[in-house]
Amino acid sequence: LNVAIKNGRVRAPTHIVSTICDDRGEEPTYAGVPMSTIIEKGYGVGDVISLLWFKRSLPSYCTKFIEMCIMLCADHGPCVSGAHNTIVTSRAGKDLVSCLVSGLLTIGPRFGGAIDDAARYFKEAYDKGLSPDAFVESMKKRGIRVPGIGHRIKSRDNRDKRVELLQKYARTHFPSVRYMEYAVTVENYTLSKAANLVLNVDGCIGSLFLDLLASCSLFTQQEIDEIVDIGYLNGLFVLARSIGLIGHTFDQKRLKQPLYRHPWEDVLYTKAVKMRIEYAGDLYILK
Amino acid sequence: LNVAIKNGRVRAPTHIVSTICDDRGEEPTYAGVPMSTIIEKGYGVGDVISLLWFKRSLPSYCTKFIEMCIMLCADHGPCVSGAHNTIVTSRAGKDLVSCLVSGLLTIGPRFGGAIDDAARYFKEAYDKGLSPDAFVESMKKRGIRVPGIGHRIKSRDNRDKRVELLQKYARTHFPSVRYMEYAVTVENYTLSKAANLVLNVDGCIGSLFLDLLASCSLFTQQEIDEIVDIGYLNGLFVLARSIGLIGHTFDQKRLKQPLYRHPWEDVLYTKAVKMRIEYAGDLYILK
Amino acid sequence: LNVAIKNGRVRAPTHIVSTICDDRGEEPTYAGVPMSTIIEKGYGVGDVISLLWFKRSLPSYCTKFIEMCIMLCADHGPCVSGAHNTIVTSRAGKDLVSCLVSGLLTIGPRFGGAIDDAARYFKEAYDKGLSPDAFVESMKKRGIRVPGIGHRIKSRDNRDKRVELLQKYARTHFPSVRYMEYAVTVENYTLSKAANLVLNVDGCIGSLFLDLLASCSLFTQQEIDEIVDIGYLNGLFVLARSIGLIGHTFDQKRLKQPLYRHPWEDVLYTKAVKMRIEYAGDLYILK
Amino acid sequence: LNVAIKNGRVRAPTHIVSTICDDRGEEPTYAGVPMSTIIEKGYGVGDVISLLWFKRSLPSYCTKFIEMCIMLCADHGPCVSGAHNTIVTSRAGKDLVSCLVSGLLTIGPRFGGAIDDAARYFKEAYDKGLSPDAFVESMKKRGIRVPGIGHRIKSRDNRDKRVELLQKYARTHFPSVRYMEYAVTVENYTLSKAANLVLNVDGCIGSLFLDLLASCSLFTQQEIDEIVDIGYLNGLFVLARSIGLIGHTFDQKRLKQPLYRHPWEDVLYTKAVKMRIEYAGDLYILK
Ligand SMILES: CC(C)(COP(=O)(O)OP(=O)(O)OC[C@H]1O[C@@H](n2cnc3c(N)ncnc32)[C@H](O)[C@@H]1OP(=O)(O)O)[C@@H](O)C(=O)NCCC(=O)NCCS
Ligand SMILES: CC(C)(COP(=O)(O)OP(=O)(O)OC[C@H]1O[C@@H](n2cnc3c(N)ncnc32)[C@H](O)[C@@H]1OP(=O)(O)O)[C@@H](O)C(=O)NCCC(=O)NCCS
Ligand SMILES: CC(C)(COP(=O)(O)OP(=O)(O)OC[C@H]1O[C@@H](n2cnc3c(N)ncnc32)[C@H](O)[C@@H]1OP(=O)(O)O)[C@@H](O)C(=O)NCCC(=O)NCCS
Ligand SMILES: CC(C)(COP(=O)(O)OP(=O)(O)OC[C@H]1O[C@@H](n2cnc3c(N)ncnc32)[C@H](O)[C@@H]1OP(=O)(O)O)[C@@H](O)C(=O)NCCC(=O)NCCS
Repeated sequence: LNVAIKNGRVRAPTHIVSTICDDRGEEPTYAGVPMSTIIEKGYGVGDVISLLWFKRSLPSYCTKFIEMCIMLCADHGPCVSGAHNTIVTSRAGKDLVSCLVSGLLTIGPRFGGAIDDAARYFKEAYDKGLSPDAFVESMKKRGIRVPGIGHRIKSRDNRDKRVELLQKYARTHFPSVRYMEYAVTVENYTLSKAANLVLNVDGCIGSLFLDLLASCSLFTQQEIDEIVDIGYLNGLFVLARSIGLIGHTFDQKRLKQPLYRHPWEDVLYTKAVKMRIEYAGDLYILK
Repeated sequence: LNVAIKNGRVRAPTHIVSTICDDRGEEPTYAGVPMSTIIEKGYGVGDVISLLWFKRSLPSYCTKFIEMCIMLCADHGPCVSGAHNTIVTSRAGKDLVSCLVSGLLTIGPRFGGAIDDAARYFKEAYDKGLSPDAFVESMKKRGIRVPGIGHRIKSRDNRDKRVELLQKYARTHFPSVRYMEYAVTVENYTLSKAANLVLNVDGCIGSLFLDLLASCSLFTQQEIDEIVDIGYLNGLFVLARSIGLIGHTFDQKRLKQPLYRHPWEDVLYTKAVKMRIEYAGDLYILK
Repeated sequence: LNVAIKNGRVRAPTHIVSTICDDRGEEPTYAGVPMSTIIEKGYGVGDVISLLWFKRSLPSYCTKFIEMCIMLCADHGPCVSGAHNTIVTSRAGKDLVSCLVSGLLTIGPRFGGAIDDAARYFKEAYDKGLSPDAFVESMKKRGIRVPGIGHRIKSRDNRDKRVELLQKYARTHFPSVRYMEYAVTVENYTLSKAANLVLNVDGCIGSLFLDLLASCSLFTQQEIDEIVDIGYLNGLFVLARSIGLIGHTFDQKRLKQPLYRHPWEDVLYTKAVKMRIEYAGDLYILK
Repeated sequence: LNVAIKNGRVRAPTHIVSTICDDRGEEPTYAGVPMSTIIEKGYGVGDVISLLWFKRSLPSYCTKFIEMCIMLCADHGPCVSGAHNTIVTSRAGKDLVSCLVSGLLTIGPRFGGAIDDAARYFKEAYDKGLSPDAFVESMKKRGIRVPGIGHRIKSRDNRDKRVELLQKYARTHFPSVRYMEYAVTVENYTLSKAANLVLNVDGCIGSLFLDLLASCSLFTQQEIDEIVDIGYLNGLFVLARSIGLIGHTFDQKRLKQPLYRHPWEDVLYTKAVKMRIEYAGDLYILK
């Protein structure tokens, strides 16, 4: 048999450190709060997220807001990258986890990932006291599109309902919404450039989360920076969209859909591409 | 140009069918319910899950139960397979989605996957009218451990708090808990065999979900079979544990943990294994 | 600091057992063979696979055959599930590993997974001495399509080149190809039923791998059963197709393709599906 | 019915563009080369990689080098992040793809990902004509460790065998190894600082790949930049290590290992961490 691991070692280090959940006692605790307290006090999903992600209880206007974000981002139809990959995997007959995961892996800079970036840039601009036009123009100079601004379909006269619902909630319940109001002034400026440069749902959640963190006075400045830096808000989108992706998996299995094969006619097989033109959302290729 | 595709085609097939979420109109709808209704009516996360997974609104005692399951399964410490893999991936410096996914992929037959199996076997046994001892003995003959029964640490005199909380809730709010009561009679029988053969949290959720589906009278028998067959309850665990896995990812990043390397001393390098003995949760190997 | 883990424990178990690669010495060894030997002896990729998967050196006609399988299965165009999901993920701007993985997760029962099943069924039938027609008819009775038989496009008069190439190689270099010849007699029988029920590439690799294992006389009967049971051949397909999936990832990045969104017109949004008809590879839905 | 789609459309856009593999004809082609040519000409795995990744046939000293890299990186024992996660997932009873994928997801900046970075920095420094000491010192000023330099165990007097094997091969077969020689002069400089700051296997492969690309005169300067930029070399490591990860999956299944649970004693459960000390590869925590 294998001999003793570390005989006589008096003070050994551990290999893993963990601070969010303790499963050793009578009942598991989330950031020190026991399971039974969570149930008995009538906590909700938003509270559990607060405990496990932020390691503290947040006031109910915050946890309610977190739950709203999850509900509003839970799904956005079968056409987006995430749902599409999940559908394809489900139709390949794979198990639920594989289907979910195949879709989740598309979440990133171009799909769902703009919330954190919106928070980062709005925070930096607001904290520095940049005027909206100075901010937008400096971004333009850097060649970066303002994350959280712009929508393919929505526009000045056809606002995104989800944005309106979140703004209304926050204006009513948050002690302060200055980051969001700043984002709105940015939107006003970009709208003067083009009608579709509205504050989108990513920008709205991103800026409002800054307000949440700043206004509840439970976080130090350093902690807020860390949260924005690590990218917690992406976690919100990822968790929310998991509901939809799991739903799409079930949906395809219920519908007994066969293996998906992309139609040959929709693929341009080529050896070399000379020029690529995007026009009205479609892709034209010159060979 | 692109319009060509649909012109003139009278009844063309589509390549994808989807029934849970429509994103084409003014605002996305979940199973026909528009976003704004969801917010205005004060729906919660459990309601959104009902709409996207079950394609109908469930009564609030059901959606509350769904939320309780999510809260209770959200995390179970850093030592279980899922959290462990997530921690290792986070310490390898990978992005949130990769960390989450690496952990999710361990969920299956041995970790977290017993809920569906518990539901399947309890349903079959109860519906057939098998007595608890006939059920348990028939499983034994088939060489299958009753899923949902047994715990490494918990026992008759040291019950799992989560099980008690769920049972209490269901007994108070469910119109009927006959599947769960059946599971309890099974537990009584297995407890007569060994003190640790308690109804565990998987068995409790599995049986109570059967009660939820059967007692709300919104599902046909065929739909219930399909739900149990496809394995919706696994989805519940997967979604719940995602909260914890995301939490562990953030935790490791906050703690700035370095790359994990499993200690050499804890590995038995061998060319051939003659015998493997498990004893008290540890593994002994004869070479 | 954390106190000593297991003071005074004389004979402790290890938590992990591993038998394929030892990285503790001067240089890593694969199944006991040091790195430098591998290079100096001019080993190839097939030899390394033999060492790490089968824990022994196989004769060169075997390792060459393994390499041929990898080359022939390396890619099969952008339309199949795996490549498609990888392409979608790459176009979402994700890193290489995420793209590869998103595609790999579609490999399973319906895509790429038939090799192991073909091996399983052909082995069982041949070892039992079932005649081809008895085998095919018994499968029909069980309601299972013979895995490894049938192709959407190829047929009696339009054979799959890959199958011919593998058969030719094996007939020339293998000491015995009795499993493959058995598969061919099965094909003769199914071809009498329909012209497209040819031995496909999965069936060909599956049966030939049985020949490889049986004819090299380096495996006990029990080891062969274990290999077929665990599903090693799936590993061959997974590894091979990784080359293609990585290639597709690079391809999309080179082409700077934008975020993929499945076209709305190609989706049937519906609340309920009454009937589903598959015809000529397309899907028709009656609402 | 379905024909409607393409009729009458003069120049329609496609939604997907692909350039590496055409599966529409008699037999699939890789970058224009048909399957049968690949087999008949006795191509190897390295040739297929050349075709699918680089879209051209490379001379045999290049494809042989690619195969050597794959063989040398195929595995590095069960303790590293990738193998560890794969082992944990395999022991959770999951399918091969899930096990492989769970391990692959740890590959990135800290594990396996240094090859591309090494290539990037060595290329930049060499092309700019920076002297080794100027390069190392400028990196130090930027606070970046030179990727490809340094090893936990290996040192001046205990070289990494894999590095020596690759260098020997390249010096014999490559027309020019100037990037690698540059890396060696950098190593000489860093070795004067500390004995363990050797050129490691990542640095060796990274610099030699630059030599491969530059010396075979089949790539334009722009193409080389693109390859280094996109990160092809990471693909090499990912593909290679897949062999090992699949091997570890099989190994655990063969050994019938039970569910892994990380030992409680090896985890520091804490609410807050004051200070973290790494010493001799172990982690000490002050609470
Ligand atoms: C939505 C979006 C694609 C719309 O793009 P579009 O209408 O096709 O716009 P175009 O690319 O044609 O750009 C039109 C002009 O608007 C500008 N513009 C577009 N998006 C901008 C933004 N977010 N911030 C500032 N300017 C923007 C462009 O620079 C361009 O200006 P120019 O004419 O002076 O060069 C684009 O706004 C965007 O990428 N926004 C950020 C997206 C985001 O937050 N996404 C979250 C996804 S989950
Ligand atoms: C938890 C568990 C591992 C405890 O096992 P254990 O205490 O080590 O039990 P042992 O394996 O030593 O078995 C002791 C006896 O109890 C029996 N037993 C153990 N679990 C049983 C079960 N679930 N149903 C019926 N009998 C069971 C064994 O068959 C054995 O009987 P025997 O002595 O007549 O052969 C085991 O009960 C189990 O696997 N339960 C199901 C697990 C489940 O639901 N898991 C969810 C995980 S997320
Ligand atoms: C390729 C395939 C889809 C072709 O199917 P198809 O031409 O549409 O055939 P149909 O489903 O219309 O079936 C036509 C008849 O052939 C039979 N048939 C189809 N595939 C069969 C098989 N593999 N074995 C035996 N009979 C088969 C059907 O049962 C049916 O018989 P019936 O008319 O008596 O009911 C089918 O053969 C198949 O699934 N083969 C196995 C696939 C496999 O190995 N795939 C690997 C993919 S990586
Ligand atoms: C391998 C490694 C961890 C060894 O680190 P270590 O021996 O613990 O070294 P330390 O962190 O104690 O550093 C000792 C000194 O060497 C320097 N150093 C370490 N690695 C260096 C590198 N790669 N380049 C330049 N200087 C380096 C440190 O800056 C430090 O200098 P200082 O004393 O002047 O501050 C480290 O060299 C490294 O990270 N190398 C890059 C790793 C790489 O290519 N990895 C591939 C992994 S797949």
